[in-house]
Order: sequence, then C-alpha cells, then structure tokens
Amino acid sequence: MAEKIVKVGMVGFGTVGTGVAKLILEDHDRITAKTGIRLELACVVDVDTHRPRPVKLPNGILTDDLNRLLGDGAIEIGVETVGGTTAAKDVQLAMLAAGKDVVTANKALLAEHGNELYRAARNNGRCIAFEASCAGGVPIISAIRNGLTANNITGIYGIVNGTCNFILSNMTAKGEDFAAALAAAQARGFAEADPDLDISGGDSAHKLAILGSIAFGYEITLDDIFVEGIESISSDDIRYGDEMGYCLKLLAIGQMDEHGRVSLRVHPSFIAKDNAIARVSGSFNAVSLFGSAVGQVMFYGRGAGMMPTASAIVADIIDVALGNSGRTFRQLNLKPRSEVEPLIRKIGDIESRFYIRVMAKDQPGVVATYGRILGEHRISISGALQHEGSGPDNTVPVVITTHVTRQKNVTAALNDLAQEDVFGGRPVCIRIVDIPEDKD
Amino acid sequence: MAEKIVKVGMVGFGTVGTGVAKLILEDHDRITAKTGIRLELACVVDVDTHRPRPVKLPNGILTDDLNRLLGDGAIEIGVETVGGTTAAKDVQLAMLAAGKDVVTANKALLAEHGNELYRAARNNGRCIAFEASCAGGVPIISAIRNGLTANNITGIYGIVNGTCNFILSNMTAKGEDFAAALAAAQARGFAEADPDLDISGGDSAHKLAILGSIAFGYEITLDDIFVEGIESISSDDIRYGDEMGYCLKLLAIGQMDEHGRVSLRVHPSFIAKDNAIARVSGSFNAVSLFGSAVGQVMFYGRGAGMMPTASAIVADIIDVALGNSGRTFRQLNLKPRSEVEPLIRKIGDIESRFYIRVMAKDQPGVVATYGRILGEHRISISGALQHEGSGPDNTVPVVITTHVTRQKNVTAALNDLAQEDVFGGRPVCIRIVDIPEDKD
Repeated sequence: MAEKIVKVGMVGFGTVGTGVAKLILEDHDRITAKTGIRLELACVVDVDTHRPRPVKLPNGILTDDLNRLLGDGAIEIGVETVGGTTAAKDVQLAMLAAGKDVVTANKALLAEHGNELYRAARNNGRCIAFEASCAGGVPIISAIRNGLTANNITGIYGIVNGTCNFILSNMTAKGEDFAAALAAAQARGFAEADPDLDISGGDSAHKLAILGSIAFGYEITLDDIFVEGIESISSDDIRYGDEMGYCLKLLAIGQMDEHGRVSLRVHPSFIAKDNAIARVSGSFNAVSLFGSAVGQVMFYGRGAGMMPTASAIVADIIDVALGNSGRTFRQLNLKPRSEVEPLIRKIGDIESRFYIRVMAKDQPGVVATYGRILGEHRISISGALQHEGSGPDNTVPVVITTHVTRQKNVTAALNDLAQEDVFGGRPVCIRIVDIPEDKD
Repeated sequence: MAEKIVKVGMVGFGTVGTGVAKLILEDHDRITAKTGIRLELACVVDVDTHRPRPVKLPNGILTDDLNRLLGDGAIEIGVETVGGTTAAKDVQLAMLAAGKDVVTANKALLAEHGNELYRAARNNGRCIAFEASCAGGVPIISAIRNGLTANNITGIYGIVNGTCNFILSNMTAKGEDFAAALAAAQARGFAEADPDLDISGGDSAHKLAILGSIAFGYEITLDDIFVEGIESISSDDIRYGDEMGYCLKLLAIGQMDEHGRVSLRVHPSFIAKDNAIARVSGSFNAVSLFGSAVGQVMFYGRGAGMMPTASAIVADIIDVALGNSGRTFRQLNLKPRSEVEPLIRKIGDIESRFYIRVMAKDQPGVVATYGRILGEHRISISGALQHEGSGPDNTVPVVITTHVTRQKNVTAALNDLAQEDVFGGRPVCIRIVDIPEDKD
C-alpha cells in the first residue's frame, strides 16, 4: 500500500507534548503499517528549548519561534499542547489562519472559546480535532460523534476528573478527610500544586461543555453549567451515605428531555453503590451514555497522563490525515445560542433527590422540627438515620434522604433549618443521583 | 448544509432488519440534521414478504427478488441481515459485485469467510463495514481501528456473548444449575430455542476472530481459536470459586506478546471478583483492551437485540456514506496466513493458572496423592479448600488452585488424577485468568 507522508508541527513541549513526540518518533513504523500514514514530526515550538525531556527530537526541529511552524507550508497539521486559554487560543487561531488543521487536548479553551474557534476553522476550511480533550485516551468523542450517531443521546453521567475521583476514592476507602486525601493526591502526582481547577469542578465543567455540545448538538457555554466542587465534602457524610447504600462521586451530568430541554451540572453526587459508575475508583474516568437505540453504554479508562492523552492526540492526527476528521467536523453544526438559550434548564428548576445532614441538639423536638420544615416546603422524606454518637456541642448527626423534589424547595428548606435553635450550624446538602441503569 | 441523499438496500427483514428499517424510517430527520446524510430505504429483500413486522415500509419496496436490489444502480449501500454463512455469503458477494458497499452484523460469516469477503470487496473497490458484528451497539470495532490506532494492542478480554453471561450470572446469583439457568434464558428471550452456538462458545469465537484480526492486524481463522463452552459448568464450582475470591465468566481472550506471538481462546474463566469485568452481569457485554499507550480501556453495553444492533448498523451506513469506512477499510491490510501461522500459540503451550476440583473418598492419602501427582507434573499449588460436606458415594470435594503452569502439564496431571482410586470420576478443571488491571 502506498504510504502518505504527513508533516506535523506541535506547539507546547511539556508532558503531553513529550508523549506525542515519543509516539510519533518511536512508533511511526507500526502506525504506518496500520494506517498507511507516515507521520513526520517537522517542528516543535516551545518557549523553553533547553530543558531536557525524556525523548530525543531530530536535530533542528525544536524552536521557540512559532513563525517557523506557521510558515512551513508542508506542515498540514498543528498540534496545540500549550494548555490554558490565552496563548493557546492565539496559537490555534494562527495555525488555522495558516491553513493547518488543529489537534488539541485543551478542554478549557474549547469550553470557553470553542464556538469561536470552530467558526474560525470553518471559515478557513480547516478542522479542529479534540478527542483528547475528554477522558484522555478513551475514544468517547468519536463514540458520540460516529458510533452512536444514529441515537438521540438523552443522558451523560461521567466521572471525568481523575484528581477528584482519586480524592473521593481515598476518602471513601480510608476514611481520610479532604485535606489529607488532597495531599496524598498531590504527593502521588494526581493533583497539581494548585488544585483549584480540579477540586472546584471547573475542569469537569469544561469537559461537560464539550461532551454536551456534541451529544445534544447545542452550542453550550460554561454559563449553562451549574458547578459545585468537592472542597467541603466531609468524610462523615461519605460514611453516612455509605450506610444508606450510596457512594459519593463528582459527576458531570447532562440530560435532555423529550422537549429538547437540557440540564447540565457538575456536583458531588451520591449514587447507588451497585451502579457501574460507583465502582470506578482512583484516578480513572468513566462515562455512561444513554442513547435512544443503543440503551446504556459505558466507556472506562485513564482520563489523563502523558501516554493516554498522547494516544488520543495521535489517533486524531491520523484521522485528520485520512480526511475523516474533516468530514466529521463539517457536520458539527451546533444549534446556535439564540435557539439553545431557552432550552437550558436552571438549577433551581431541576428535580433531584437529596441527602441532608443536620447536627441536632440532643433534646426533644428534633424530628418534629425537621418534619415540619420539610413538609412546609413539600419535600417528602424517603429515609432517615440518626446516630447515637455525638458531634461538637453535644449534637448528634441526623441524616435525611428525600424523594424527588425541586432544588429551589430544598434551598428554601435549608434556610429554614439553619434558623432553628435545635440544629447547630448550616445543614449539609448533597444531591442523590439515580443514574438510570439498563437491566435485563 | 447541503444534504446528501444515500439510497440503502437491505437483505433480511427479521429482528435486526426491522430495527434498521425503524431507525432509518422513523429517525431520518434527526440523522440528517446530525450528519448531513439523508438515508432512503429503497429496497428490502426477504423470502417472507407477508409476515407482519412492527414497522411500516413505504409501498412497493419489500420484495423477494434480490435482483431488484442488485439491479438498482442508485442503491449505494447494501445491508445484509440474513445471518448464517451460506445464503448470506452469496448475498454479500453479489452486492459487492454489483458495486455496493456492504454493511453487516454477521459475525459467523466474517469469522469463517472474512478474508475471502474482504478480498472480494477490495477487488471491487468497495468496503465491508461490520461494527455491529461485535458487542452490538457498543462501538468497539471503531475504537480499535480508529480511537486506539496509535496503540499496540496487547490484550483483549471480553464478555461478548450475552446468553452465556445471562446464564452464568443466574447460576452465580441464584445457585441455579445450568439446565435451569438455560431454561430461564430461553424463557426471557436471551437464548435461542437451539442454544448450541452460544453455549458452546462458538459465537464468542466468531467475535474473537474479528476483534483479534483488527486488534493484532493478522488474518485469523477459527482454527486459531481454542474454544470450550459452558455446558458442563456446575453451580458447585461457581460456589467454590466464589469462596476463593473468583467469579466465573465465559471470556474471549486475545493476547499478543512482545514477539508478535498471539494466543486466542474462549473458555470459562475464573476471574478476580473485584475486576471490572466480573461486575458485568446479565445479558450485557464488556470488552477490556490493553494498549501500549492508553493502558486499559473498557467498553460496556448491550451486545445484542433489535435496536442496539440497528444502532451500530445505521452508524456504519452513515460512516460508509461519508466515505470514512472506505478509507478505514482500505487500511485493513492484515498480515497474511503464511506469516501468521507460525505466530499462533497452541493451547497446550499456553500458560495459565487453574482451578481443579476432585471428588475424594473420605479416607487417608488424599492430600498425599494429589500433592504427589501435581508435583510430578511440576504444578505448584497456590490454594486448596476441602469442604466437610459430602458428595455422591461418600466423597468430599477438594478444590485446588495452581500457580501459572502450562496447559499440557495440567492435562497430563488430570489424566493421572483420574486413575487414582481415592478420587471418584474425572476431575473438573477451569482456567483462572488474571486479567491485568491498571491501578493508580
């Protein structure tokens, strides 16, 4: 079979860039045998051209001058592994303007400026491929865009941030508190020195914006997504939830109803312990999708790391080189904001079940008080658990789970509960998510 | 965006064919909006043109005359949902000869005659798309061929037959014996009236032949695959295995070592209860793949049924219509038999751990006897369990698990064990498979 030589330029030579260079340089014979495409790394741009990296580039291709890449007409594909939303955006726009297709793992950039970048690509007759932006090496984007294309996607339930899942898994398995679990994640390299973007849920929201866009066919913005992080989760609540049959995960959730109304949210979620997603532990990612024809499908694997991310980037490079990405990208005609905005459901209107914990003073009237307040807000209780052990100031934890109710009713009830003398401090409230599961 | 009208013909109007017709006829607007392709079902061929089906075809397109489909030059894509390996093969060859691309779910046909059909497609400048042949609606073929293309695939561990998994799940959960679990599967529609192809492991072998071909890039034949079914599994062994930490699954296993040597086998397998694959229950399918860059990835979903299979077929139709399947198919240059044959490992040479159960007479010398025989065959014992309860003829079950050893040593030891007076009947032997699991 005739080989097609494809020259690749890359901007950003950090961890992911190093992985991409390794795959292209060390595995090109195998990749050519499989695909007929001979990848040639022609130019690597990074501000730091001196730091040693664990891969040896061919002489002369490393430079700090982006114009060398842009000006080389033989380079058809530009990989952006800079990260962030400022320089990376300029780099992508410049590569598109220079007639190069773009491959990227940059979820933050696509979530914030994807609609603009997609337009720029289209105006330049180029494409942007972004399989690596969600769930690392797991080919979830391609599954949604191609494999499940005959389906109406009605639900996405994903663990898409390995840092948070590592922390919550350790809190669950070892009873560690949040600070200790975060420190362990940092020590093991699963959390950044500045972990904010991960633990705040922001990174998961970036990925949900991308997955939601392609699954539902809407121009999604970050403002459409309700986000709550895991910073204030206590191991006590994980334990009480466990006693009631639940496991705590940070979920990215996208749902579309039969009227095309969409809800998008990232928040700590109690899910049934026997759900497949509950069993995803440590730094792994998993996404369950529900399609109108296929039912439930789940994808599982490493959501980050040098080689898993590089695996997805190189797959995209090959897909672009074969012309497949271009065709798929041209079909990415998302419903525009003017039509989408009325279809986005606000968090207050979203219905859910809830886990509520109050610290009650050990005195008469506790049950009557919370019973009355929840009743006033038309919240129906599905379970309750009161431990005999005591908290600070001679209080005891009272845990209540509710039937499905509106978020805004719960918010109002929490305010009322916080006013009552028999309860100490602000109640804890965590959503219970009943992930639909296909059963025989 | 301009729409492209694509005319589709289909041969076979049974369960899967009905699902395909439903998706194309009922969801074409949504599919067009997503893909730019307007599918038009132009001709449906079946020997039975009278039986009512739960979908209404446009007037005049149902016929029992294959030539109407073949002779219609406007039909670009032919779907074969006939099943089986005789008429279906003629249909596919005729459609290819008539210049149509072929989409099929027929794993038996591809496993037995795939190499011949692929050549016929190539000679006619056409392609065969077969996503639906493995794991129903789960896009596993596309994941291997596209999403993971930068990886060297080193292992496949799959539950790819829902019938067997339904039976084994029920035997495990309810302690049912095989006959009762099979009857329950038939009553629920999860097993055919003639269940042989499923319970013998034959259907799993068909799928492994296809997955192994594309994952390893080899021309695989069914003769390369060692197959053992679940017909003689007893619920006693499932229970004893459970006590030792194992769960019984019918696995399709493909492994490639660093020298390119491949082993392919389908057999009942004890796997660790906490492995992700162990938790796949009922009629669901799951496949774990190990890639050199990505590590472990797992795909999960419904492996059969009208709409899941139709989901994969329609996705393939669209992929063919976009031209992507054709490009991908042209890269399917499998290493030919002459090179592959020396690289296929025979089952006798394959190393594994084993679960062995003997029924021992309640008399002195039992431990000494099996200890001596296993020792003579250089088999090292990793665990043993002797229950006080008794079997027939005043025997007690003795369960032994071994360290890794060659199949042929175990076969020889089983023959020797069967000769000993202290043991009643033929020993039971089930392989223990240590699926590698990526951990943090």
